Amino acid sequence: MAAEIVNSEDTLDDNAIDPAFALHRGGKMAVRSTVPVKDADDLSLAYTPGVAKVCSAIAEEPELVHDYTWKSQVVAVVTDGSAVLGLGDIGPGASLPVMEGKAILFKEFGGVDAVPVALDTQDVDEIVDTVARIAPSFGGVNLEDISAPRCFEIERRLRERLDIPVFHDDQHGTAIVTLAALRNSARLTGRALGELRAVISGAGAAGMAIAKILVEAGIGDVAVCDRKGVVSTDRTDLTDTKWQLAGFTNKANLSGSLEQALGGADVFIGVSGGTVSETAVASMAEGCFIFAMANPNPEIHPEVANRHAAVVATGRSDYPNQINNVLAFPGVFAGALQVRAKDITEGMKLAAAEALAAVVSEELSPERIIPSPFDERVAPAVTSAVAAAARAEGVARR
Amino acid sequence: MAAEIVNSEDTLDDNAIDPAFALHRGGKMAVRSTVPVKDADDLSLAYTPGVAKVCSAIAEEPELVHDYTWKSQVVAVVTDGSAVLGLGDIGPGASLPVMEGKAILFKEFGGVDAVPVALDTQDVDEIVDTVARIAPSFGGVNLEDISAPRCFEIERRLRERLDIPVFHDDQHGTAIVTLAALRNSARLTGRALGELRAVISGAGAAGMAIAKILVEAGIGDVAVCDRKGVVSTDRTDLTDTKWQLAGFTNKANLSGSLEQALGGADVFIGVSGGTVSETAVASMAEGCFIFAMANPNPEIHPEVANRHAAVVATGRSDYPNQINNVLAFPGVFAGALQVRAKDITEGMKLAAAEALAAVVSEELSPERIIPSPFDERVAPAVTSAVAAAARAEGVARR
Repeated sequence: MAAEIVNSEDTLDDNAIDPAFALHRGGKMAVRSTVPVKDADDLSLAYTPGVAKVCSAIAEEPELVHDYTWKSQVVAVVTDGSAVLGLGDIGPGASLPVMEGKAILFKEFGGVDAVPVALDTQDVDEIVDTVARIAPSFGGVNLEDISAPRCFEIERRLRERLDIPVFHDDQHGTAIVTLAALRNSARLTGRALGELRAVISGAGAAGMAIAKILVEAGIGDVAVCDRKGVVSTDRTDLTDTKWQLAGFTNKANLSGSLEQALGGADVFIGVSGGTVSETAVASMAEGCFIFAMANPNPEIHPEVANRHAAVVATGRSDYPNQINNVLAFPGVFAGALQVRAKDITEGMKLAAAEALAAVVSEELSPERIIPSPFDERVAPAVTSAVAAAARAEGVARR
Repeated sequence: MAAEIVNSEDTLDDNAIDPAFALHRGGKMAVRSTVPVKDADDLSLAYTPGVAKVCSAIAEEPELVHDYTWKSQVVAVVTDGSAVLGLGDIGPGASLPVMEGKAILFKEFGGVDAVPVALDTQDVDEIVDTVARIAPSFGGVNLEDISAPRCFEIERRLRERLDIPVFHDDQHGTAIVTLAALRNSARLTGRALGELRAVISGAGAAGMAIAKILVEAGIGDVAVCDRKGVVSTDRTDLTDTKWQLAGFTNKANLSGSLEQALGGADVFIGVSGGTVSETAVASMAEGCFIFAMANPNPEIHPEVANRHAAVVATGRSDYPNQINNVLAFPGVFAGALQVRAKDITEGMKLAAAEALAAVVSEELSPERIIPSPFDERVAPAVTSAVAAAARAEGVARR
């Protein structure tokens, strides 16, 4: 009998007893009606014939679509399944559990409706055309888990073509939260951003966007490293995107390896999935900040990093200072949709980072440079700041 | 003061006080999470890192997408805004209130989640490509309010290309409900379908599909009329689609006007928006059936039709026997999704019509040949019949 019990484990469907599989079974979201359709009167208002006059009004005055449909409260979460979590190119179907997860985070954290749209193409032109053609139904587009460098061109072309916000969260969500964490680390330790030299490990979507927002925010210097070392204009092997990156980073004109670049650096930002040695971290400047954000395995273990740094952050929920995109994207879109923004500008991203940092500015400690994802002050603060910035930057419709 | 009160009507926003506009303000639907995301443990199961193993499982075994996402319970309601209600080509934005209405009817009547997708293109190739590319996210595609003849090609090509059901409701929903009404009219009056001669006014999407399903169901004969009269192989002005139609209808080889064709006919089916004179209706056979389904104005007033017919039906909720698509599409998709059907076949449509007719087969009267849209027996009956037919026809995945 004992043997039978042991053997029975082999014949059980492992998926059925794993709590993650149990949770995801049947999906994680649903649609609901917000109006009654219980009798003929309801039906004649919500559908024919009553709906016809609403359609006619929008046909005459197209901006009314924002008033009389759910367009201005719903975001398409678009992926091609090419760079999903740490799993890589797993395709559209296998990416859907992540996109649904993203959609429910939009709803639960930002009150924003969101719909997963996983595309059966990885061709840049086809992705751009497809998203542009479905855009009339949505108030915004959140690009998700699309590999670099295609993600840069797709976002740029869609922003040019559409009059609704297009936002690649893997870039800008990460950049916003990282900047907020850096601002608070500097505040806590009495430093100014302008006196800090940062090194980013990873020149993909996140690394590019973090470098860009740090420069915009006035960082002293930032060098970005890919697998071959510092991205600099001395290199002959750079893609167009990395060539541009080299142009606005690395004022110190560093070259060589990541570990070499870390010598004397004030900030390490890891978005690579690689590793960094304790020796390299020990060579950083006194009172440095280490944001080892690779998931699930940080570039350096936070307990090791703590021996050498004034502030340590990771991407994990089981250590202090979790750099988590959910701190940004729900409020960023909620704010943009609230004012029916046509775009999400750099100013709106900087405002989001500042507002996010300010949530814990009175509570700062080395273990609290960024709010918890469950801090209920976060989304309202980011939403208000982004809406105000959209108005200030002239991209708000109201 | 009195003058001021009168004048104030001019300055009021009419839309704000109209009950239809009030109902549609802010849209008619929302998304909700069906799993908790209240703390870090929830988040680590619903999103990273827990979601990764679900994604990996689907990447290894693609059919698992039906088990672990909402794909198999969600339908895309796709339009290009070219033939919206009686309003015509009003474009994607103005069509959204109808698509949202359709989506909530899917949910309320069939328990099926649905998402409006209004496309910014009316090009057949672009529509087909766009829908095919977003298809990984959906368990089915409901085409809606796309003008003829483009709707025929779009549906045909998408059915060929995709492994999920594609169903143009303006065609097949209308055809299913019409056939159900005709079956019960025949039952009530002791006639067989094979002895009936029908005349359809309107050779667009609905007229074509009704003609097709009546022939499949064994109607004695059916002639379809467009604005130029009976569609017959004698005509030299037919489009390809109408030429095909002429090939499988009009065994009697009628020609001439609609009114001429009605002489001695047993059934009139109006899906044209035109009008029919009382004289023409009076020339029909004894005990005829008149389905004057144009909305909001039937081809002939039902009270006039009643002087000459054994059964009268319309598309209106304020007269008996409302031919309403909501009797079909929620159950058709619910049944197809239940068994994860790859297609909606002719057999599934015939089964839906039979099941719909059977709901009131014990209660038949001239004023009750079809159930009310709010009859709660309808959707379960249609769902079961369609699921069983899908299995019988070999298009079910389970």
